[in-house]
Amino acid sequence: MLGKFQVRTDLALEAREICEETGHESIREENGRIRTGIKGQIHGVRVEENADEEREIYTTTVTIETENAAKTMGKPVGTYITLEAPNMSAPDENYHREISEELAKHLNHLISGRKESVLVVGLGNREVTPDALGPDVVNNLQITRHLIREYGRVPDGMEEAGEISAIVPGVMAQTGMETLEIIRGVVEETKPHLVIAIDALAARSTKRLNRTIQITDTGINPGSGVGNHRDAINEETLGVPVIAVGVPTVVDAATIVNDTMEELVAEMDRSRHFQMLGGTLGTLDYAEKQEIIHELISPSLNTMFVTPKDIDETVKYLSYTISEALNITLHNIWK
Amino acid sequence: MLGKFQVRTDLALEAREICEETGHESIREENGRIRTGIKGQIHGVRVEENADEEREIYTTTVTIETENAAKTMGKPVGTYITLEAPNMSAPDENYHREISEELAKHLNHLISGRKESVLVVGLGNREVTPDALGPDVVNNLQITRHLIREYGRVPDGMEEAGEISAIVPGVMAQTGMETLEIIRGVVEETKPHLVIAIDALAARSTKRLNRTIQITDTGINPGSGVGNHRDAINEETLGVPVIAVGVPTVVDAATIVNDTMEELVAEMDRSRHFQMLGGTLGTLDYAEKQEIIHELISPSLNTMFVTPKDIDETVKYLSYTISEALNITLHNIWK
Amino acid sequence: MLGKFQVRTDLALEAREICEETGHESIREENGRIRTGIKGQIHGVRVEENADEEREIYTTTVTIETENAAKTMGKPVGTYITLEAPNMSAPDENYHREISEELAKHLNHLISGRKESVLVVGLGNREVTPDALGPDVVNNLQITRHLIREYGRVPDGMEEAGEISAIVPGVMAQTGMETLEIIRGVVEETKPHLVIAIDALAARSTKRLNRTIQITDTGINPGSGVGNHRDAINEETLGVPVIAVGVPTVVDAATIVNDTMEELVAEMDRSRHFQMLGGTLGTLDYAEKQEIIHELISPSLNTMFVTPKDIDETVKYLSYTISEALNITLHNIWK
Amino acid sequence: MLGKFQVRTDLALEAREICEETGHESIREENGRIRTGIKGQIHGVRVEENADEEREIYTTTVTIETENAAKTMGKPVGTYITLEAPNMSAPDENYHREISEELAKHLNHLISGRKESVLVVGLGNREVTPDALGPDVVNNLQITRHLIREYGRVPDGMEEAGEISAIVPGVMAQTGMETLEIIRGVVEETKPHLVIAIDALAARSTKRLNRTIQITDTGINPGSGVGNHRDAINEETLGVPVIAVGVPTVVDAATIVNDTMEELVAEMDRSRHFQMLGGTLGTLDYAEKQEIIHELISPSLNTMFVTPKDIDETVKYLSYTISEALNITLHNIWK
Repeated sequence: MLGKFQVRTDLALEAREICEETGHESIREENGRIRTGIKGQIHGVRVEENADEEREIYTTTVTIETENAAKTMGKPVGTYITLEAPNMSAPDENYHREISEELAKHLNHLISGRKESVLVVGLGNREVTPDALGPDVVNNLQITRHLIREYGRVPDGMEEAGEISAIVPGVMAQTGMETLEIIRGVVEETKPHLVIAIDALAARSTKRLNRTIQITDTGINPGSGVGNHRDAINEETLGVPVIAVGVPTVVDAATIVNDTMEELVAEMDRSRHFQMLGGTLGTLDYAEKQEIIHELISPSLNTMFVTPKDIDETVKYLSYTISEALNITLHNIWK
Repeated sequence: MLGKFQVRTDLALEAREICEETGHESIREENGRIRTGIKGQIHGVRVEENADEEREIYTTTVTIETENAAKTMGKPVGTYITLEAPNMSAPDENYHREISEELAKHLNHLISGRKESVLVVGLGNREVTPDALGPDVVNNLQITRHLIREYGRVPDGMEEAGEISAIVPGVMAQTGMETLEIIRGVVEETKPHLVIAIDALAARSTKRLNRTIQITDTGINPGSGVGNHRDAINEETLGVPVIAVGVPTVVDAATIVNDTMEELVAEMDRSRHFQMLGGTLGTLDYAEKQEIIHELISPSLNTMFVTPKDIDETVKYLSYTISEALNITLHNIWK
Repeated sequence: MLGKFQVRTDLALEAREICEETGHESIREENGRIRTGIKGQIHGVRVEENADEEREIYTTTVTIETENAAKTMGKPVGTYITLEAPNMSAPDENYHREISEELAKHLNHLISGRKESVLVVGLGNREVTPDALGPDVVNNLQITRHLIREYGRVPDGMEEAGEISAIVPGVMAQTGMETLEIIRGVVEETKPHLVIAIDALAARSTKRLNRTIQITDTGINPGSGVGNHRDAINEETLGVPVIAVGVPTVVDAATIVNDTMEELVAEMDRSRHFQMLGGTLGTLDYAEKQEIIHELISPSLNTMFVTPKDIDETVKYLSYTISEALNITLHNIWK
Repeated sequence: MLGKFQVRTDLALEAREICEETGHESIREENGRIRTGIKGQIHGVRVEENADEEREIYTTTVTIETENAAKTMGKPVGTYITLEAPNMSAPDENYHREISEELAKHLNHLISGRKESVLVVGLGNREVTPDALGPDVVNNLQITRHLIREYGRVPDGMEEAGEISAIVPGVMAQTGMETLEIIRGVVEETKPHLVIAIDALAARSTKRLNRTIQITDTGINPGSGVGNHRDAINEETLGVPVIAVGVPTVVDAATIVNDTMEELVAEMDRSRHFQMLGGTLGTLDYAEKQEIIHELISPSLNTMFVTPKDIDETVKYLSYTISEALNITLHNIWK
């Protein structure tokens, strides 16, 4: 869709923006704005937005309804709920609690009652800070499967607890195995009703890093954000429904360079410095510009990622927020 | 075998000593020595000892040959090789290399050619220092399965490399699952020819802590050393041969107390302080003494373990020594 | 005071019990109870107890008022506040919050206004689970000194925030330096008004492990619990007041063996099995019994500690509870 | 020197390249090559190169001899030795050993005998993978100061050992203190003869990441690579000589974007697409181009860094290589 140079994003929100932009370039230029999410209409994609201005939590639900729309968006048919909150990674415990509860509400909706036995999978590499989100979430979960199996649901407050199990499969460089192989083995052995996979995602732009949580009932492609090809983790491959919870914590280095350069080219078309050129640059079409840009990007950038310098604190707060949301949903501990 | 109070040991070496002692109490007392490994003969148990005095590496091979002997020893039929080296956890890199090579030699013998595809399992809890041995060993392994599957054995030095994969399953409190369930799932999915399980063991006495490595072709019971019941991990439960490599890093707290108290009771039977008692204590039999001791041991001790204060350094050196041995054996990197 | 075999405890509460017991042995035997904290009176030691039965939080304030009492107790003149709560290390977030607030109240009292600039020191070895309490507490603190120095106390909610700095000095095997040397250097360079030192302690019995928090205005001896001699960290050595917060997370292995054996000897004096001995054991005095016991304890036990198997979870909850208490006190975030 | 937009580099090697490039722009264009390290001559800078082709280790020694040259280079007067080895972060233990020995040789030369008591400082944030190099190096050092102080240099092989101490001060967000404050305090308290500071650096281009080690006798500015201003750590601020060992593990995100865009602009001046423009772009001077680029770079990029996806493995190998070099040098363990 984006030509030879594939800009990756794990966020349906961004996929939609990209589709709209590239499909409606004239509209973009009339407004003189670039890549700011002007709404177009993609057939088969339903979008609902909700802004809680007071608490600064913005929710977007993207529903991909048809296979055609799925093809256009590069994402499978399903529901993608995105929570955005500018202060999500600030050190404010009460605010994290509010986000946890909002997240729990949406999770509960997607789970729709299949809580009886749930396997939570913490994807990613615990040795690489921005990729440790999944393992860190698992670290703070209340694991109950073994207790319920041994003692039943008798103890106070356990009456409604789900049978929660969890695994941190590691990444291929550590295990020599596809993540899917490990999870499929565990699922076949322990037969959960539902899998919830937590993963650090790659965003397309830095503006969504560490302030966005995406929940989807379509599962995810682990590591798709960091360029390693692995098989999908979804109902088709596992045989049970898979809900994915992801937070963009990195941007591909090539993506950032690409984006800034696209802006440079666009700017040159317009800028005072280039007025005298009579818009000559405009004679190049989108694909030609992309080609120049792509040639200039060092191949080594494809093995690199970009992440904020305070990623340690950020991942700590985010993982805590998500594990709280899971604890609330799975154990029915609502306020 | 030891009466109501079960003194646990994961070491065949110690199991043999205990059997001999309790079965030959009279011999023991004639010699006036207690628990010093006087050799008796258990039918169906073959013992070979080898002392490399120069390098201070002592090897004992205990072979349990019959089901009867297995019952007596409390360990399945099979081969148990124990390496003892007093300086095993000292910070001497060259010495570690020598032990790695000695260990690799024995491993190679037990593996007997089934190296083509091996799953290494790092048992234990990476969050608890003396239990992190297994996870730490996996951390330093050369994992090759994904590389060989993608690129073949072409690159230099890879011609003889095995397809090595590895997993750190975690412990039940973290996963809610039996370790066996996870490993069985992974084994069924990835079909290795051999499993090698690495685990921290519980010894019966502090004198073997962190200076003993046991290799066996019978598999192991993970966590048996720390009192959590879990199913065996062996050829019967997994369907492929299982070699276990273990190092005693803890002793059960109850065991240490029990042992010292047994010595106290024995001492009282003999001591100058109690001569006047006319050996009255001697009128109590072994079981009666055990009962008194058992009553006095706080039940809370059963949830406790004893470990050296420098366990962090020790586990670092030991895990490095074992992962080197595995790298040598599995990738055929002999000097 | 305890004869040749020094039983160590970092808890004033236990020091008092020991003093009372050994000083009032007859009282103990009349009651037929051993080591259960019967109150005697040590001159110069004031004790106040408070039981919050509903929330199950028990507070004991031991004030050592005279140098003589300090000598008897083996602890310097000062105030020692102990919070005991049986469920302190259970996974109940609301309960932890209550303990944090209770702790904050006492801390606030001891700090008595010297909050303007505080250096928090996380003592212990982050590589050894039960010793990682101090480093873990520092990990969750809100550090503000650098922010206030750069931006002032302007941002919302910062008006009353203290200038908080923190350091994790490591242990001597990692640094080659006395902990005191490092802290003294940092104190001289940064001139805080107050030092708060957090440390894992050694208790005398397992019954107080992980359910007791001691706060004192006398500072502490880091590592005294695990047998490494290092200099005191207190107002005398640092030049600024030092508040110490400690939780017993280990018991010395030798202590546990010693205690159980003492009970065995006492039991023998009384037990039905020994009635016929006419109390002959009673002819041995305390020191003679201690000597027998001491001879039987393996010297290797002095380099060992005892800790619960679930110490990873426990230290996680405890460190979180303490860092919350510090955040509340130092930043004046009361509900 | 580089105009409003300051491109940072911690490597003297790169500083020299930049100076030469910007100072000799005409030369550059004649050759039709950009930023490829064509050698010019900066007065007061002496450069020596050594290529060990067989082992693929390339050594460059840059000596800045005058204050004027220091000003031009943006680096203090002193010696900067750079080792480059393409396979430095590959998993080849023997090769690491060779690099360790090469590094040890250079270190030994710079240290010039002041080994009697050395404080090693592991700068950086152990919670952020590419910044954990310094803390990881300290983790593998043989610390001896406390042993020598207690037992002397008596044990075998210790006769020539230095009194080595070490500290991991943490970063300002964790401590609230300048790193310099902590180190200065420790130096004043423990009086080492020499400080060796280990740090992860920021390079200017991805091509030097994780394959370059720089040693200098001028000390370093910790965190200069990641944009946090802190005071220099050198003989002037500490009162003892400071040797710095650094490895570039990250590139500033803004730098990568800037560089690629500069290439785009240069390319446009030349490219077939722009021939018709008659070199109009050429009418903009260097500063004007820089300004356009700078405006387009998102300010958020200044808080981001770029690092390879396999940074966990890489930092493990590099830190091991450096700590081995230090162990060899400081304890005189030459082959």
